[in-house]
Amino acid sequence: MNDIVTRFEENPLLSPKDLTPSREGLTIACLLNPGVFIHEGKICLVVRVAERPEQNEFSVSFPILKEDGTTEIKNIHLNDADLIATDARVIRYKGSDYLTTLSHLRVLASDDGIHFHESARYPPIYGKGALESFGVEDCRVSQIEETYYLTYTAVSPSGVGVGLKTTKDWVSFQSHGLILPPHNKDCAIFEEKINGMFYALHRPSSMQLGGNYIWLAESPDGLHWGNHQCIARTRENGWENARIGGGASPIKTPEGWIVIYHGANEHHQYSLGALLLDVKDPSLVLARTHEPIMAPTQTYEKSGFFGNVVFTNGHVRHADQDKITIYYGASDEFVCGGVLSISDLFKALEQSPA
Amino acid sequence: MNDIVTRFEENPLLSPKDLTPSREGLTIACLLNPGVFIHEGKICLVVRVAERPEQNEFSVSFPILKEDGTTEIKNIHLNDADLIATDARVIRYKGSDYLTTLSHLRVLASDDGIHFHESARYPPIYGKGALESFGVEDCRVSQIEETYYLTYTAVSPSGVGVGLKTTKDWVSFQSHGLILPPHNKDCAIFEEKINGMFYALHRPSSMQLGGNYIWLAESPDGLHWGNHQCIARTRENGWENARIGGGASPIKTPEGWIVIYHGANEHHQYSLGALLLDVKDPSLVLARTHEPIMAPTQTYEKSGFFGNVVFTNGHVRHADQDKITIYYGASDEFVCGGVLSISDLFKALEQSPA
Repeated sequence: MNDIVTRFEENPLLSPKDLTPSREGLTIACLLNPGVFIHEGKICLVVRVAERPEQNEFSVSFPILKEDGTTEIKNIHLNDADLIATDARVIRYKGSDYLTTLSHLRVLASDDGIHFHESARYPPIYGKGALESFGVEDCRVSQIEETYYLTYTAVSPSGVGVGLKTTKDWVSFQSHGLILPPHNKDCAIFEEKINGMFYALHRPSSMQLGGNYIWLAESPDGLHWGNHQCIARTRENGWENARIGGGASPIKTPEGWIVIYHGANEHHQYSLGALLLDVKDPSLVLARTHEPIMAPTQTYEKSGFFGNVVFTNGHVRHADQDKITIYYGASDEFVCGGVLSISDLFKALEQSPA
Repeated sequence: MNDIVTRFEENPLLSPKDLTPSREGLTIACLLNPGVFIHEGKICLVVRVAERPEQNEFSVSFPILKEDGTTEIKNIHLNDADLIATDARVIRYKGSDYLTTLSHLRVLASDDGIHFHESARYPPIYGKGALESFGVEDCRVSQIEETYYLTYTAVSPSGVGVGLKTTKDWVSFQSHGLILPPHNKDCAIFEEKINGMFYALHRPSSMQLGGNYIWLAESPDGLHWGNHQCIARTRENGWENARIGGGASPIKTPEGWIVIYHGANEHHQYSLGALLLDVKDPSLVLARTHEPIMAPTQTYEKSGFFGNVVFTNGHVRHADQDKITIYYGASDEFVCGGVLSISDLFKALEQSPA
């Protein structure tokens, strides 16, 4: 391992206890995987807030969003022979899958990038409609000119896909439905057009043939996507042999686009790696780190709602253009931050084909 | 069951022995799942031709398309402990999936809709590039004005997605890459725009949450797709509880768009059903058949390369506007045909919500 991230001493920056549940009867189980943007001079996080009812020792309880916006609580007795609950995040019951938590998105702002606060300035974003009845998760924010593009995971009994909203003021949002059908997540739009086209990374999953790989797509308008190409696959090593997926919008450098991505192994340990994509043709992978640039090492990264996870989908670039603050979810329960330098990243990016 | 299809007495219309393999060393294992179009006054089929090397009793042999267009034959000994070969169509070896056959598409023309012949007029269509190295399959053809849109399954180690080619003359083709990323197939474009937009049915598959359902997508240009919506899910009955997927381009009637689709149960038996979609908003399902309108009953539908399958992705409408000839793959080995009437279809389409 070649960990190049200097964690903040203040980590975790945010824990479930720091926020108030969205409604009575629910508790916040996890704060995680923030998208990041700059707005009105502040550093802002779009944090995923995962809630569930108080649990008791006899049953699993979980919330589902109904069409009218209210929440229904389902209870399943732990002795029920039809219940399969081996994963903290998903349960299977009578042939259907459910999430143990219901997520929405909340915006928190900061002057220093370390202390984040809720504000009435920013309304929360809840799932809406049949394709988001199990919630909205893991939002990436890309700013292109004056418009912010929010790509997030939309979850429902119909599957897990990528939803898109746009906004200019973080008060009124335009919903554009699912831009990528199931099973897909980890979508981030590049923050500038290339040859007149929008580009995005995304992570479809296959049931048979293929796997959990990083793909690239093109769009003339940011809403409709095509020419999907697979640019990076899992590798048979200790840290990214099960799943990989893109993080935040790629970072432009003269040498190419840097993608900080996550890789998970068969033990569901999540670490971070990096790709370097050609500036003019981002379907060309110029380099890829062999070792993780960050892996779970701290207590808050190793223990929590779902331990052994570092997962980033948001960052800000410093004025020196070399330093980057990445924000990341730790153990699916905490929001943390750390700093890395692009020159260290380039040292880690051996010039080896993907 | 409420079988409304009158099979042709000449069935099967095409069998593997009727065509010549594409190259020495391969035999044709299956002819199946034809797309259908009218061209220069003839009824034409785009037949999927699935080939493999001669098999012996000691090993499984299968072909893979290389980047240079040549074919590599892989051999795996049946005693190899790493080989999992329980499905005639797919094998698993050392953690990777492979197809047992390599498919390309071949166009056959007919004057009477029953006797089809190859012709030098129509070049075959082979998979090309990294995303089609396991072949191209199950092509739907939609004609919009003078352009034919070919949507087909593109298969490779990166997954199973939907490729698009367009042509006006069936000699020169424009490739548009994958319009839908893995795991996706069964895509058919509507043959006219609705409110200025292209529409298509497709069938993404989910690993967790969701299933094998029919989705609808929109596009401004036919190449880039968005606003994906789930319009029909599997149902707990004897014939479509495992998978459903759209057939050919929907049939326009004054009452709505008719979709003839396939459903498979847990025993991999494939039957046909129908949906009725709103004329102006095809995301609205107005009706759906409860019983199959066609199921495997004939010897050639029950026994073959992969038995108990009827699967259609092409049809022609008769001049009377009521009768339709559907062409279908039987047992993944034969091309067959039959006639049904739209008025019988409407009788089968109870007015029940999906």
